[in-house]
Amino acid sequence: MILRPTQPLSGFIELTPVQQRVFDLISTRISNVFKNSGFMRLDLPAIERAEVLIGDQDSDELKTQIYLFEKGDTKMGLRYDGTVGLARYVSGHVNDLFFPFRAFQLNRVYRGERPQRGRYREFYQMDIDIIGEQTLSTNYDAEIIATLANAYGSISEFVGPTIIKIGSREFWNAFFEYGEFDENESRAAFSLIDKKDKLNFDDFRNALIDSIGKDKTEMVLSVFENKYDIWADKSERLTATIDDIKTFEKQLESFGIKNYTIDLSIMRGHAYYTGIVFEFYLTDHPELNSVGGGGRYADLCSRFSKNQYVGVGAAIGLSRMIVALFDQNKIDLSRFESVADAAVLVMGNDRVAYALNVLAELRGHGVSAIPYLDADKKFKKQMEFANKINVKYTVIIGEDEEANKTATVKNMESGDQETMSISDVIKKLSDGVR
Amino acid sequence: MILRPTQPLSGFIELTPVQQRVFDLISTRISNVFKNSGFMRLDLPAIERAEVLIGDQDSDELKTQIYLFEKGDTKMGLRYDGTVGLARYVSGHVNDLFFPFRAFQLNRVYRGERPQRGRYREFYQMDIDIIGEQTLSTNYDAEIIATLANAYGSISEFVGPTIIKIGSREFWNAFFEYGEFDENESRAAFSLIDKKDKLNFDDFRNALIDSIGKDKTEMVLSVFENKYDIWADKSERLTATIDDIKTFEKQLESFGIKNYTIDLSIMRGHAYYTGIVFEFYLTDHPELNSVGGGGRYADLCSRFSKNQYVGVGAAIGLSRMIVALFDQNKIDLSRFESVADAAVLVMGNDRVAYALNVLAELRGHGVSAIPYLDADKKFKKQMEFANKINVKYTVIIGEDEEANKTATVKNMESGDQETMSISDVIKKLSDGVR
Repeated sequence: MILRPTQPLSGFIELTPVQQRVFDLISTRISNVFKNSGFMRLDLPAIERAEVLIGDQDSDELKTQIYLFEKGDTKMGLRYDGTVGLARYVSGHVNDLFFPFRAFQLNRVYRGERPQRGRYREFYQMDIDIIGEQTLSTNYDAEIIATLANAYGSISEFVGPTIIKIGSREFWNAFFEYGEFDENESRAAFSLIDKKDKLNFDDFRNALIDSIGKDKTEMVLSVFENKYDIWADKSERLTATIDDIKTFEKQLESFGIKNYTIDLSIMRGHAYYTGIVFEFYLTDHPELNSVGGGGRYADLCSRFSKNQYVGVGAAIGLSRMIVALFDQNKIDLSRFESVADAAVLVMGNDRVAYALNVLAELRGHGVSAIPYLDADKKFKKQMEFANKINVKYTVIIGEDEEANKTATVKNMESGDQETMSISDVIKKLSDGVR
Repeated sequence: MILRPTQPLSGFIELTPVQQRVFDLISTRISNVFKNSGFMRLDLPAIERAEVLIGDQDSDELKTQIYLFEKGDTKMGLRYDGTVGLARYVSGHVNDLFFPFRAFQLNRVYRGERPQRGRYREFYQMDIDIIGEQTLSTNYDAEIIATLANAYGSISEFVGPTIIKIGSREFWNAFFEYGEFDENESRAAFSLIDKKDKLNFDDFRNALIDSIGKDKTEMVLSVFENKYDIWADKSERLTATIDDIKTFEKQLESFGIKNYTIDLSIMRGHAYYTGIVFEFYLTDHPELNSVGGGGRYADLCSRFSKNQYVGVGAAIGLSRMIVALFDQNKIDLSRFESVADAAVLVMGNDRVAYALNVLAELRGHGVSAIPYLDADKKFKKQMEFANKINVKYTVIIGEDEEANKTATVKNMESGDQETMSISDVIKKLSDGVR
């Protein structure tokens, strides 16, 4: 028989057991922040109808990235983000839900991109959304940002502090209207501002001049050079949107959020955003660029329903962020190498019944324990195993221990060992590990 | 634009938010049992190379069930169980792992079967395995069963008690050898015994007679009619295997497992088992048939490695079991309807900043809270929302509350309400919900 390859497909993530423990701890911490903030978990199918996945206005690039296949006459594919499924779910369950509906997702999504550094074909993304029927106060936009800030805060021991950059689609709409940008000029300016961080200043300026002329370029540049609020009195719409930004800042401060900055170059590409947009960055790891972000959208479910659902949502690029930090050895894994609180070593097959008894007692009292049950193997071999699995304590079961209903506990760091009753073992190991 | 369908594809599971909370609680409880027993979580890719998924000896039926597709020149597909990925992972990471290697998986698997009641195209399965290099003591078989028993025990409030039926492949191999069954007779008898529970006694007996003749049929039937241990002295191999079964029973009892029975009709179809096999049934829900099971296998990684890896493993059919109980309304969801500890209602937009402050305080102290931030909506409308989300307490923020840095707490069951300091609110809500 020809042996099959043992490596995963290129572009797919495969963690070591220790990395997996850290990954799971991080996703649990974030999930708990979302639950604490009253978001309900949705766990939607990874496979959707092709017609659900592909929208009328989707780009050809997106279409080629979707994994599509057929069973019988049904064309289907793997979801490429959490939003399409959410929109379908909300439209289909209107009567089971109450609004504003608050959901979070922790899901694998799939993109058939050409694999490259930091781009995966299967990865976890965490989504949170608050969805209203027809209207939704922008107060919720502040709540989403605060929740995301708390989520990153809950894992700061791994990722360090974050900085939040907040933009406003509505500011630019008001600005373009005031400056009498035509549709092409608005679109060109929007798209260049979206790329501003990736271009040097001269390239940015020259590209603007090419698209919208010198005067309008100077207007746009002044937004970044001066404070944006000098535009406040130019038009009613500009006044209103700048007021909204000021209010928004106060709300964030009410939530105790200080690590933000208003940065009107934040656009967040996707077409569907209509109000506040934001991106999160890791202060200590700027090379990762945005590690999450989101914004307000005016019509979530247009593909599925005639009713209008407005919302504000955000996504954390969980796999991308964590795997990049793993790859750069930026996360100290040493604290997580221990698989269990104790190893249980058994001196001979005649001791197994008693050892299983002790094992059940330990586990029943919350002490996680791994037994070595090839009990006729030599003590040295068993000790090697205990060393490999990095436990702090080893519980040794020999003939005397069984006769006296005791066990010998060895501290693997100090080398000290002591024989004691099982209830004392439990006490010692519970103290030692909590 | 033509509206897309809002229902998931047939054969795919979509839970309500309340069902999802129960499902997540159940899978967390079982995961914790596995972790407490020293199993490490593996979260392997859902997509594998086609050549990895399809073995040389796999049936055409299996092949048609796999979702296969291509990207570029690569043929790939969705995993149909957790075992293939585990075998690939172990073979590819031999130097990163220590043996016996203990892993658990909580994963979605995919089968393109024709959808029917209780059969899904995407479902969660939980796998645990202990894998040794070349040898592995059968003591671990008892440990796997005990761990699975604890797993079901941890969710007994939802599924009730279990009964474990334990069979032995080796008993039958020894029995067929002693009875001089030829290869065809062994295979026919094996396959009929595997189906025994689905046939009535006469059909079972007649099918046996057709395949292996009257004398051998009477031999087989006597195993079920009398105690199997009357065969103990017939051959050395029978003596050894029956001794092993007796030892195994003692080990289970050492683990405190009493809810088992030796039932030699348990065969567990799949070809790869070589020793003990077992199935778990819910005492209160016999119509679900087996809800989990497993056994010992002699060669896990033959598709990937020349080295021999022996193991014992088990799987819990999580989605199938839980969704069947949901469908039959056998799980009381009423305890889980509350999404959060409290709703926070805000009397007007001028109160929002203070309300967000209170919200951050509550959440920071572990009180989960959902605000109603369309703050200009009428009090009645806001109260309707609090009623719908089924919270026990509502925290009301009005002008007086802001002025005095207080909040009014309403108990939604009794209707009592009281104005108090924020620290008292936290105290009351923490007491009330824990």
